[in-house]
Amino acid sequence: MERKVNINISARHIHLNRETYDKLFDNELTVLKPLNQIGQFAANECVTVETPKGKFENVRIVGPLRSYNQFEVSKSDARVLGLNPPVRESGNLEGAEVVTIKTLKGEVTIPCCIIANRHVHMNPEEANEMGIKNGEGLKLAIPTEKKGVIEVFAKVSDDGFFEVHLDTDDANAFLINKDQVGVLIK
Amino acid sequence: MERKVNINISARHIHLNRETYDKLFDNELTVLKPLNQIGQFAANECVTVETPKGKFENVRIVGPLRSYNQFEVSKSDARVLGLNPPVRESGNLEGAEVVTIKTLKGEVTIPCCIIANRHVHMNPEEANEMGIKNGEGLKLAIPTEKKGVIEVFAKVSDDGFFEVHLDTDDANAFLINKDQVGVLIK
Repeated sequence: MERKVNINISARHIHLNRETYDKLFDNELTVLKPLNQIGQFAANECVTVETPKGKFENVRIVGPLRSYNQFEVSKSDARVLGLNPPVRESGNLEGAEVVTIKTLKGEVTIPCCIIANRHVHMNPEEANEMGIKNGEGLKLAIPTEKKGVIEVFAKVSDDGFFEVHLDTDDANAFLINKDQVGVLIK
Repeated sequence: MERKVNINISARHIHLNRETYDKLFDNELTVLKPLNQIGQFAANECVTVETPKGKFENVRIVGPLRSYNQFEVSKSDARVLGLNPPVRESGNLEGAEVVTIKTLKGEVTIPCCIIANRHVHMNPEEANEMGIKNGEGLKLAIPTEKKGVIEVFAKVSDDGFFEVHLDTDDANAFLINKDQVGVLIK
């Protein structure tokens, strides 16, 4: 099975739960821009994330609120913060690194920093059609000038929109531009 | 053909020719540390490289002096400088981006900035044994947690020491650590 797929690059961003959000903001989360994944959006609200070694300002919240707190970074972001976060599927925070999340209102210090695994979103119908199971490792061919084939994991959900998510280090290493198309191989 | 190979990560660095070097330094180039490639060394001498958009200080010269000037960067380095350098084999400066190279003594502004292609060094004997020709595209399997197989180009020379050279973006994207071993596949 081979199928063309858009590659979308995720810059560092954060997901928050209700409890953490309320410590950091008085207003409710507001939508800056809907994302391709159904119901997901980049929020207007941003936070500062810091460690004793470094910090990032204007880290955007991706909404809606979650049941967990999760700060997703690239390896080069992690170097700035002096952290060595594990590679994890979104929602799996085992071994996540500790960071402090700050706004003008308040701050929390919690283990929530991971490097997201390379993954491809799809809905159950698409997964079924391609014979793919949730969590399955697939190959993604990236046909750029610095080309290669990397492992990506299937993320099947009802609100899944078919696209690959890689991080900014992947984008720089493979010279991936906006609207880059890859080939998903099973 | 499959063969284990060490992966060495090249950070940004610069090669200079005699004319440029003499504009920037009064003393001769001195050895800080020999590199694996026979006769090559990291020099004590460093330069500042800048563009109207950004700069890097303490860019190390890799000696000995060359017949050309060449500043090798990663894509993320290029973003800091506001440049879009081409991917080139070392020594091919077609379309190289312009930067200013500075020391306390002087400065030169020249087109010399490239992203080095992913390559694997070897000597003619090793190339012959593996049936590899200079410039040939090969596959490199990188067995890290963010694994994949990328294209690398053979660089055959008498002073070649068998190892792969990737850049810091590749290292971050694939979570490549010191002493990482890959598998070269033809």
